Amino acid sequence: MVFYAKGFTYCNFILYNSSMNIPNTEKPRIVVIGGGFAGISFIRKLKNIQAQVVLFDRNNYHTFQPLLYQVSTAGLEPDSIAYPLRKIFRKHDDFHFRMAEVEGIDTESNTVKTTVGELSYDYLVIATGTRTNYFGNTSIETHSMPMKNVPQALNIRSLMLQNIEKADISDDPEERKCLLNFVIAGAGPTGVELAGALAEFRKSILKNDYPFIEREDMQVHLVEGSERVLSPMSSFASEKAKRFLEAMGVKVHLNTLVKSYDGKTVSTVDGRTFEAATFIWAAGVTGAPVKGINGSALLEKQNRYKVNEFNLIEGYNNIYALGDIALMKTSAYPSGHPQVAQPAIQQGRRLATNITRALKGKEMKPFEYRDKGTMATIGRNKAVADIKKMHFGGAFAWLLWMVVHLFFLVGFRNRVVTFFNWTYNYINYDKAARLIIRPFRRP
Amino acid sequence: MVFYAKGFTYCNFILYNSSMNIPNTEKPRIVVIGGGFAGISFIRKLKNIQAQVVLFDRNNYHTFQPLLYQVSTAGLEPDSIAYPLRKIFRKHDDFHFRMAEVEGIDTESNTVKTTVGELSYDYLVIATGTRTNYFGNTSIETHSMPMKNVPQALNIRSLMLQNIEKADISDDPEERKCLLNFVIAGAGPTGVELAGALAEFRKSILKNDYPFIEREDMQVHLVEGSERVLSPMSSFASEKAKRFLEAMGVKVHLNTLVKSYDGKTVSTVDGRTFEAATFIWAAGVTGAPVKGINGSALLEKQNRYKVNEFNLIEGYNNIYALGDIALMKTSAYPSGHPQVAQPAIQQGRRLATNITRALKGKEMKPFEYRDKGTMATIGRNKAVADIKKMHFGGAFAWLLWMVVHLFFLVGFRNRVVTFFNWTYNYINYDKAARLIIRPFRRP
Repeated sequence: MVFYAKGFTYCNFILYNSSMNIPNTEKPRIVVIGGGFAGISFIRKLKNIQAQVVLFDRNNYHTFQPLLYQVSTAGLEPDSIAYPLRKIFRKHDDFHFRMAEVEGIDTESNTVKTTVGELSYDYLVIATGTRTNYFGNTSIETHSMPMKNVPQALNIRSLMLQNIEKADISDDPEERKCLLNFVIAGAGPTGVELAGALAEFRKSILKNDYPFIEREDMQVHLVEGSERVLSPMSSFASEKAKRFLEAMGVKVHLNTLVKSYDGKTVSTVDGRTFEAATFIWAAGVTGAPVKGINGSALLEKQNRYKVNEFNLIEGYNNIYALGDIALMKTSAYPSGHPQVAQPAIQQGRRLATNITRALKGKEMKPFEYRDKGTMATIGRNKAVADIKKMHFGGAFAWLLWMVVHLFFLVGFRNRVVTFFNWTYNYINYDKAARLIIRPFRRP
Repeated sequence: MVFYAKGFTYCNFILYNSSMNIPNTEKPRIVVIGGGFAGISFIRKLKNIQAQVVLFDRNNYHTFQPLLYQVSTAGLEPDSIAYPLRKIFRKHDDFHFRMAEVEGIDTESNTVKTTVGELSYDYLVIATGTRTNYFGNTSIETHSMPMKNVPQALNIRSLMLQNIEKADISDDPEERKCLLNFVIAGAGPTGVELAGALAEFRKSILKNDYPFIEREDMQVHLVEGSERVLSPMSSFASEKAKRFLEAMGVKVHLNTLVKSYDGKTVSTVDGRTFEAATFIWAAGVTGAPVKGINGSALLEKQNRYKVNEFNLIEGYNNIYALGDIALMKTSAYPSGHPQVAQPAIQQGRRLATNITRALKGKEMKPFEYRDKGTMATIGRNKAVADIKKMHFGGAFAWLLWMVVHLFFLVGFRNRVVTFFNWTYNYINYDKAARLIIRPFRRP
């Protein structure tokens, strides 16, 4: 017997409950694995469908990942970017949420096996997203700080604040520098935004809270293997972003690959080293597939499921994949859509429409991605944005970014709280949430 | 060598730094241990004093304990009740904060020993407060959920939500009841407020998020050893509170002492049992003294330091104790002041004035407690309040409670955020922050 958590044995209940209290139904049952952008967009559009919808997620909340870096850098609290899944779909008929891990899929019997039991499905939608990719590098995997979910973001926040506390009491300049050295690997939007936020902290907060630490003692390094920051974006955006970062004091190292990290020293392939107590790994993601669906459908290197234009996984007739975990080759995107929010949201909505149509005997419509633009923020008042053929950089792009992200946030409360938070923080150049609630200790 | 946390060895810095980067000074040095109500009120009133002030606390934030129960029951997020200590005293000259544990005091050499080094003092102020008192009961100490700080409150929140998730998938009525049974030991303000908040959750949230759980399946039990709830308050307040609780569905068990808890079953001295997956221990506190100051000054049973009317610890001429850890016998309070916020705050302010006067060669003024009243809230719109000879119960008392607590909150941001939070929650009968961020696993 597998226990979901030790505490749950105390009541002696039967864990493998084949129905996990999901009512039997005559209607088709759609099982969704993953409550990220894709899964949520899909289910939201199914609101009035004549089907039962069951959602599994290992957490009881949805994480708005684009703003996770704000949690890591003590700019926002988790509840501003995490939204309880039960609440989102409260008004749906016959919707059921189960907090569980999916352990496997039996495609012969159309059954999902989870840590809280087994469930049969008529349609299965896999929207499990991605996990951190360490590219097989075990030293990095062991010692770096990843940032893919809320606990990881909180660990980064704790470590950052703990290291600064320690630096404050150190009278050895070398140790001080090490403790105040922050290295980020990966100059995609995540890394760039993290670097910008750390630079803001250094500029505006550090001396206020730690009057005996000189701004120059704290350094932020952004290390990138390719020749540009924000390589998925236009060269205009890359150039602008690099200049904004450098103007804020971030040291950008391009064409630099990290070889190893032992908890203290970052070593690069070209022989350089950085003594850094905080090393954040934002240099790659890989798909998070589910056991049971493998073979030719799964693209080994990227761990994404090959799907057709209806998001149907190759080789199956009732199993779909959405978002980051799906690879749909089109003429416009021969290597699949970028693993960002927009394709996930649009695919989710399209599939919802398609399944609704299919249940009514109508034909499905193929998915067509509409790229509404990409943006990345750098610090408090700069951003870069590529929208269709237009490129923006600077304060306007930042405003645009603000509006777009607020619009995306799930639920009214978070939008208002976050808007209030940001407005207050912006006006006061201050971020109050610098709490070390759970000190981070290396395992 | 003692390490504060394993991660800090990575930079090889010298831990036992005798100055921990506190600048030497000609001025007197006042060392404060503990950043709770007493410590903070004391330091705040020292703003312009001609002395150096050093504060030690194991956390980098102050916890507003009266609202901790809101965090436990997913009504507020930690950042609404926790305020970074560095920020509170940012505008003070020659104030230094060190996040550390105090390991002992050498009263001969006037030195404080901490996990980040040693420091000499001219004046020492001990404001360490209290910790949970299990009265020597090891089963309770091992298995119950205490609620004295933020991580503990978050653990309660996680356990509560996890248990409800599990109950949702259980088809065994007995296990379901066990998972949805909440027992609180101790009907002081903490226990009463917790019970009220859980009853609110049961009334307003449970069915919204968990449509397949019947309200009657969830039970809240409040167990109290004495014959009244809120025994420090008037009998009017006790009666009212008990009636309010029972009207909300809380089962109140007076004259009932808990004998043991094994993680599943609460057993009372009179032979009753409750099958409960969540058992919260709010039945006692005891002082949290520091090593090095013992002997006759320390009241063994309560672990409080005996102080005179100037808060000076018996037997010493430069060591003071404030708040919960201090026992000042007066004619009005022969057993010492109640261990609540008001005496702590007033003693802190009085001592600050006194030390300032002493440094100028003036006489100190004895402390005189002004009881401004006691209140406790029960649920969303009821409270009881004893103010001087007046007693209030009901909605007016609740408004009073709201105003008083908001006024106490440290810092502008928390007041506004909390006010916004509460107003929103109040209007919508809803508490959005139901996140299980760090699942609780019994060690």
